[in-house]
Amino acid sequence: MKAMMLRETGGPEQLKLEEVDTPIPGSKEVVVRLKAAAVNRRDLLVIQGRYPGIKLPAIPGSDGAGEIAAIGDEVSNVVPGDQVIINPGLNWGSDMHIKNAEFTVLGVPANGTYAQYVKVPAENVYSKPSHLSWEEAAALPLAGLTAYRALVTKGKVKKGETVLIPGVGGGVATYIVQFAAALGAKVYVTSSKEEKIEKAKSFGATGGINYTAENWAKQVQDLTGGIDLSIDSIGGEVFSILPSLGKIGSRIVSFGATRGPVPNFILPSMTVKEISVIGSTMGSPQDFADMVKLVEQHEIRPILDKTYSLEEVPDALLRIEKGANIGKIVLNIPQD
Amino acid sequence: MKAMMLRETGGPEQLKLEEVDTPIPGSKEVVVRLKAAAVNRRDLLVIQGRYPGIKLPAIPGSDGAGEIAAIGDEVSNVVPGDQVIINPGLNWGSDMHIKNAEFTVLGVPANGTYAQYVKVPAENVYSKPSHLSWEEAAALPLAGLTAYRALVTKGKVKKGETVLIPGVGGGVATYIVQFAAALGAKVYVTSSKEEKIEKAKSFGATGGINYTAENWAKQVQDLTGGIDLSIDSIGGEVFSILPSLGKIGSRIVSFGATRGPVPNFILPSMTVKEISVIGSTMGSPQDFADMVKLVEQHEIRPILDKTYSLEEVPDALLRIEKGANIGKIVLNIPQD
Repeated sequence: MKAMMLRETGGPEQLKLEEVDTPIPGSKEVVVRLKAAAVNRRDLLVIQGRYPGIKLPAIPGSDGAGEIAAIGDEVSNVVPGDQVIINPGLNWGSDMHIKNAEFTVLGVPANGTYAQYVKVPAENVYSKPSHLSWEEAAALPLAGLTAYRALVTKGKVKKGETVLIPGVGGGVATYIVQFAAALGAKVYVTSSKEEKIEKAKSFGATGGINYTAENWAKQVQDLTGGIDLSIDSIGGEVFSILPSLGKIGSRIVSFGATRGPVPNFILPSMTVKEISVIGSTMGSPQDFADMVKLVEQHEIRPILDKTYSLEEVPDALLRIEKGANIGKIVLNIPQD
Repeated sequence: MKAMMLRETGGPEQLKLEEVDTPIPGSKEVVVRLKAAAVNRRDLLVIQGRYPGIKLPAIPGSDGAGEIAAIGDEVSNVVPGDQVIINPGLNWGSDMHIKNAEFTVLGVPANGTYAQYVKVPAENVYSKPSHLSWEEAAALPLAGLTAYRALVTKGKVKKGETVLIPGVGGGVATYIVQFAAALGAKVYVTSSKEEKIEKAKSFGATGGINYTAENWAKQVQDLTGGIDLSIDSIGGEVFSILPSLGKIGSRIVSFGATRGPVPNFILPSMTVKEISVIGSTMGSPQDFADMVKLVEQHEIRPILDKTYSLEEVPDALLRIEKGANIGKIVLNIPQD
């Protein structure tokens, strides 16, 4: 089969199209013939060698959708030909609250979806939502799962609440906007680009603030009247402002820190207002199942940024690195 | 009546013994003739003018125990002569999860317990636990309430869990040690003084680490195998180390920051391990009732540091300012 193989860490240009053996399913495993894959920031970190537990050579890629091509022994949930999406969280364990130490993400160390075929545990495949195209289906898993756990399982969003998403643009943030709107929350976003704020309004945001304005925090306060739930992936100085925007008893979920550690975290404002900061990453099998259900119920369609061919994945990764995307970047997988 | 009156903010020496009018209860209020009062760090902040909402002149003091001296109209829960302790949290509101904006603490703006008599809402008095002396009873309310909410309501401590309390010594920290031990947790403390660690072991701590050692964090890790719940009132650099000591899915409750804001808060470790940081302050009426029940059930006796006369309260406050105390500092109230 064709695959984009990573033999050495470095930049996206390290990925090379190679002809490799098609995987064979073991017991309780399936092989999926991929129709489409999607690109995540994690892939970039892996390729740059900035992710723990990397073993090379390997095929990156966590997101994919396709048809069951082969099944191993003791597989009863699918048959060849079934149309599926893949939950990229491997070995979560039995406690849905806490992942165990063996938890990994599909795509390094295990070979991932930058390929024509991928082998995964049978329990990791779910029926493809019928209202989604292959591209949309491939764009859903990792970012949709991360968004769902952050917003619902950890953030416990409630109908009517005011949700703030600093830095809309990345795939997870766009799903958070969509999911929060579907669940009846009022969603506000920040961005440095008016274009991204306008786009966010088109898929569910109530309003947005350009954070290049010096008084952006006051603008958020005036516009919203205070935040019940912030879902942040930026960190840095932006994060240290979030407690001042929160109502008494409000929550801040953190699922990343693209701008690094928080330089001056003001505990007194957290204490006095009893604000919680809640770490969240990926999600459990239960989160995945619940996320797919939400997407089907509300017929949510992933926001797609751009589609590339499998060979063009280095260009796709550079687009993510620049933060130029709004929504998910998808890969078409060659079918022959 | 005699009272230590604050007419201007400054240092503890601003407090002067004065003869003032004895309060008269209004509707739904009671007047308590105090047998003992206790001193809190909050009193110091009020006197120094570092607390919001100060209106002078006023009588500070949040903690007290005594006998009901007079009751107003529509009071049915107590009669004159009843022995009571006072919940210093006023106007919490009806939602036990979230205090409302009118919440204040007894002792500035409302006149407090540095006096022979104090007037409070009838709903704020509770039967004095019968196993406690007047001094012990007066030492319980504010610190016991704060400890209970931080440990149980917000921290959700469970039997068998490992709890870390950085900087044992203050009244709240000593109650957290006692309550956590009573609830079946293993409790570890840190201090700069061996004497405080040994004392903490005498009332329930399993072990302790001297944090003046350069490798104190590694020592905690080796000694405990990882923390389920940290309850911190220190903030500063100590706080930024806590996520590295936490297990996956662990919690950090913050109820103060004597060393100020956290200089470099590492979000990635919080995210990857899905750690929560939970702000907590004082507690609800429900927390107070549950705390008193716990103290009665386990016959917990407050750790008393030293007893002063009412007139000596400036000395008591200086002792708190220096962090010299282990446990609560109590005031004997003159009975004539």
